[in-house]
Amino acid sequence: MNFDRKILRWNGWGRYDEGFDLEGRDDAVWSWISETVGMPTLVENLGPKAVDIELPISQLNEKQVGELKSLLSEEQVKIDPYERAFHAKGQSFHDLIRLRQEKKVEMAPDAVLYPENEEQVLSVVTYAKLNNFALIPFGGGSSVVGGVEAACKEGQRGVLVLDTTRMNRLISIDAQSMTATFETGIYGPELEAILKDKGYTLGHYPQSFEFSTLGGWIAARGAGQQSTKYGKAEKWLVGARVVTPTGLWQTEDFPASAAGPDLRHLVAGSEGALGVITQATVRLHKAPEFDDYRGYLFKDFESGAAMVRDILQQGVQAATVRLSDTDETRFLTTFSGLGKKKGLGERLIKRWLGANGYGTSPCLMILGFEGDMGVARFAERQTHAISKKHKAFPLGRAAGKKWYEGRFKMPYMRDPLLDRGVAVDTLETATSWSNLSNLHTAVSSALNQAMEQNKAFEGAKGIVMAHISHAYETGASLYFTYVYPVDPANGPGQWRTIKQAVSNAVSQNGGTISHHHGVGTDHLEWLEKEKGEVGLNALKAIKKKLDPNGVMNPGKLVV
Amino acid sequence: MNFDRKILRWNGWGRYDEGFDLEGRDDAVWSWISETVGMPTLVENLGPKAVDIELPISQLNEKQVGELKSLLSEEQVKIDPYERAFHAKGQSFHDLIRLRQEKKVEMAPDAVLYPENEEQVLSVVTYAKLNNFALIPFGGGSSVVGGVEAACKEGQRGVLVLDTTRMNRLISIDAQSMTATFETGIYGPELEAILKDKGYTLGHYPQSFEFSTLGGWIAARGAGQQSTKYGKAEKWLVGARVVTPTGLWQTEDFPASAAGPDLRHLVAGSEGALGVITQATVRLHKAPEFDDYRGYLFKDFESGAAMVRDILQQGVQAATVRLSDTDETRFLTTFSGLGKKKGLGERLIKRWLGANGYGTSPCLMILGFEGDMGVARFAERQTHAISKKHKAFPLGRAAGKKWYEGRFKMPYMRDPLLDRGVAVDTLETATSWSNLSNLHTAVSSALNQAMEQNKAFEGAKGIVMAHISHAYETGASLYFTYVYPVDPANGPGQWRTIKQAVSNAVSQNGGTISHHHGVGTDHLEWLEKEKGEVGLNALKAIKKKLDPNGVMNPGKLVV
Repeated sequence: MNFDRKILRWNGWGRYDEGFDLEGRDDAVWSWISETVGMPTLVENLGPKAVDIELPISQLNEKQVGELKSLLSEEQVKIDPYERAFHAKGQSFHDLIRLRQEKKVEMAPDAVLYPENEEQVLSVVTYAKLNNFALIPFGGGSSVVGGVEAACKEGQRGVLVLDTTRMNRLISIDAQSMTATFETGIYGPELEAILKDKGYTLGHYPQSFEFSTLGGWIAARGAGQQSTKYGKAEKWLVGARVVTPTGLWQTEDFPASAAGPDLRHLVAGSEGALGVITQATVRLHKAPEFDDYRGYLFKDFESGAAMVRDILQQGVQAATVRLSDTDETRFLTTFSGLGKKKGLGERLIKRWLGANGYGTSPCLMILGFEGDMGVARFAERQTHAISKKHKAFPLGRAAGKKWYEGRFKMPYMRDPLLDRGVAVDTLETATSWSNLSNLHTAVSSALNQAMEQNKAFEGAKGIVMAHISHAYETGASLYFTYVYPVDPANGPGQWRTIKQAVSNAVSQNGGTISHHHGVGTDHLEWLEKEKGEVGLNALKAIKKKLDPNGVMNPGKLVV
Repeated sequence: MNFDRKILRWNGWGRYDEGFDLEGRDDAVWSWISETVGMPTLVENLGPKAVDIELPISQLNEKQVGELKSLLSEEQVKIDPYERAFHAKGQSFHDLIRLRQEKKVEMAPDAVLYPENEEQVLSVVTYAKLNNFALIPFGGGSSVVGGVEAACKEGQRGVLVLDTTRMNRLISIDAQSMTATFETGIYGPELEAILKDKGYTLGHYPQSFEFSTLGGWIAARGAGQQSTKYGKAEKWLVGARVVTPTGLWQTEDFPASAAGPDLRHLVAGSEGALGVITQATVRLHKAPEFDDYRGYLFKDFESGAAMVRDILQQGVQAATVRLSDTDETRFLTTFSGLGKKKGLGERLIKRWLGANGYGTSPCLMILGFEGDMGVARFAERQTHAISKKHKAFPLGRAAGKKWYEGRFKMPYMRDPLLDRGVAVDTLETATSWSNLSNLHTAVSSALNQAMEQNKAFEGAKGIVMAHISHAYETGASLYFTYVYPVDPANGPGQWRTIKQAVSNAVSQNGGTISHHHGVGTDHLEWLEKEKGEVGLNALKAIKKKLDPNGVMNPGKLVV
């Protein structure tokens, strides 16, 4: 299942033969969106074909191409325009808008290399180091923060991309210890299919699941939608092998240790800047025998958030706890109702909810349990008591099922929106429970203000919505989506100004600059505030020691 | 409750007015021990008084003492022999045997400093750096791995000890986020008393609880006996402030983040080698409304270990899961029966157990639940099913209560044993479930062999016993206790040879060199195997960057 890059969009999300299904409601959806963002006429500006765009000329001479081919093999070294364009960038809004408006990429890899094992990775890293190339590890390429941008430092000869997706084997399973060791280029669906076949799951299902890899999840310190049960990458990572420019690093893999600082936490979040993660041992769970996802409605965000907090602080073993704010709840409700007739039942429920105080600032929660049936049932009983306390209105399994089935689909919506001149971007952060409300307000307001100040034309309207996407005993993450009409003259600049303003707001209001997307290039500026000068110096010292020439993914994470 | 050092033993465990209570069974106990270790006559060799020992002369001149007093205050700078002797070493067996046999300490701090706030810590660190002194952070001083040894590097002028125990204030509690921020010199009982008063607990109860501090727990990456519920230090640490020689470091304190590597994991386990941890934010739980500790007996170690594994892998919310191997079970059973008459009931039970297969290689489990009653009750129900599967014989609450009540007392037994010429030392490690049995056998056998090869006299016998002390989904720790007659001619050398052999066995058989004691000086030799050369280089690079002059706790963790 290591996707041939030719079946995947080089300039957008996913497979060419898949997209967002509007179920025949196209007219209703587009006219509502046009109205909502104050854009009377949506543009018709389909993204560029690969053949349309201008690529910088490869810096590699024939001798170098020959050397690379001799290190690997003829067909493991790609220099054709499609491969170079595909590997030039990630999947951030900034990546897409640049392609669409500029019809060119400023940087593209000079070659794309497909090593098939760790030894080949070692030779590629050594080659890059000895020949002064930047080397960018690339898995699914789904970074939304510029994490795989094909950039090099001044003085470097050019950029090589190391595509990991041919390294996709299961190495071993330890059934007693409930761990598995994989090569890290394996995609989500393949990894889970292998595990399911043996009765296990890793349980890591980010929105990018279908098009991201194990190595990327670890490098970006990612989070799946069921992370309440299965943990973020740093939690399920048991051990790793990393090819650094100063040698192969096999980390500790003990269940716990007091032998000094835990260096696995340097690998999780290393973003390819220290080396290429070639193998990872991960913690398994038994494939769930049971799952149950339900919806709840709250009178306001505060009562919903209080329920999330209780669930976590009382140790209820949920898998997914997700709470949309009022704006997101309204958006989702309206969107899913567009072009459909409401039945009598639905109208009555709506009236009842309105009359009972759920109409003013409704907030939707998706709450999911999975695993052993007895444990999940007990968790549901605990939840029932908590939901009474917070006056949650149960919407039942239909709402849960709907969310569950659509959970990987949203990224497919971004391309058709952008093609019509409508920007959608997301950002995510996390903070303590006591600061959550403040952060939610501050970031929403910064976004609204920035979109207003940078609007493309008179009448253009921005939309902000948010949800708690992942929750912990001591706090939670907030995931913001914002939508606005693209400035046809300068989409990238408009985006950057908005991003700058909102990142300042996140940082100044006690949020982390990223809960699960990573740092990449886009969040670099805010890292020092978060780590402290001393902390950042520690990180720089590690980078300098492990990658003295700055070969690995320059310009990301730490410079 | 920051103990006046004068009420605490400078050359042994705990308070002068406390000790191990043999409940009038002294003769029975000592004669059994004498027989067990093959030592017909126990020696009578009480530890040295402070006045007996020889201290190196302080390297500080009057000017320097004056400077230190001006930085702090007259009475915050101690140069009297008791304070210097108290702060010369930790509480390892090696520390104690050296004192007893050599009646001297080779190294002692030239002064002991008691800063009362972070600013004073900053000035002390700066003073040490500018004046080329080694600086040793010292909390409870309960390190059993040489972690607070008053040593300096060649070329340094001398050693200053920074005693943190006057920094023992609660800074703040965040009730919503369930976190508290403390100064780190606070002792266990005081911290828990403050929290209990407000309805909370941290739940960190190591065996050293009464005489160790928050900062020490973090620096050594410690584990409490209820860590299955409350987590090891690295798990409950939310954020920290560290005074390094290159400035104050305030770490991130988010519930989760993808902003690069998690640098809190450099602080947990830093062992004073990067700086002085001055404040820590920790995760709280509600003070438990319920607790229940019980004993179970297994036919062998394998079935007991399988139950521990099931408890963890099925996500049962236990607090303590502890399984003694057969040797430890026999030792504990015999020890507690010494000098007591067995009642009829006890004899009948013993006969029944023997007849039903529990007599050949019995293993004792202590299983504890605490917290919310409903949750704990559900966990007990889950456990019941698991215990049937593994044929666990329930011993009821009496066994649990007995363990619970004695859980901080064992260290008090070491001094009277040593006074009589009997060595007791412990070591602990952790590994995956699939390797646990191998590691248990290999380490036990290495210990037995090393004690035999280094026996003090013909007929001297060593004892080895072990238990699973902490358990995880993917593996568990093993805690070994070993007892042998001290070589009267060379106790330290004998100990070192045994330690070397057993540490090699741990390292070669897939165990971590420490699960919760730390590295200190005693485990340094085995660190590179564990972290890898590249990993150790990363650690060295951090040390070099944050402490370029090597001021902080030289010779521990990373050199």
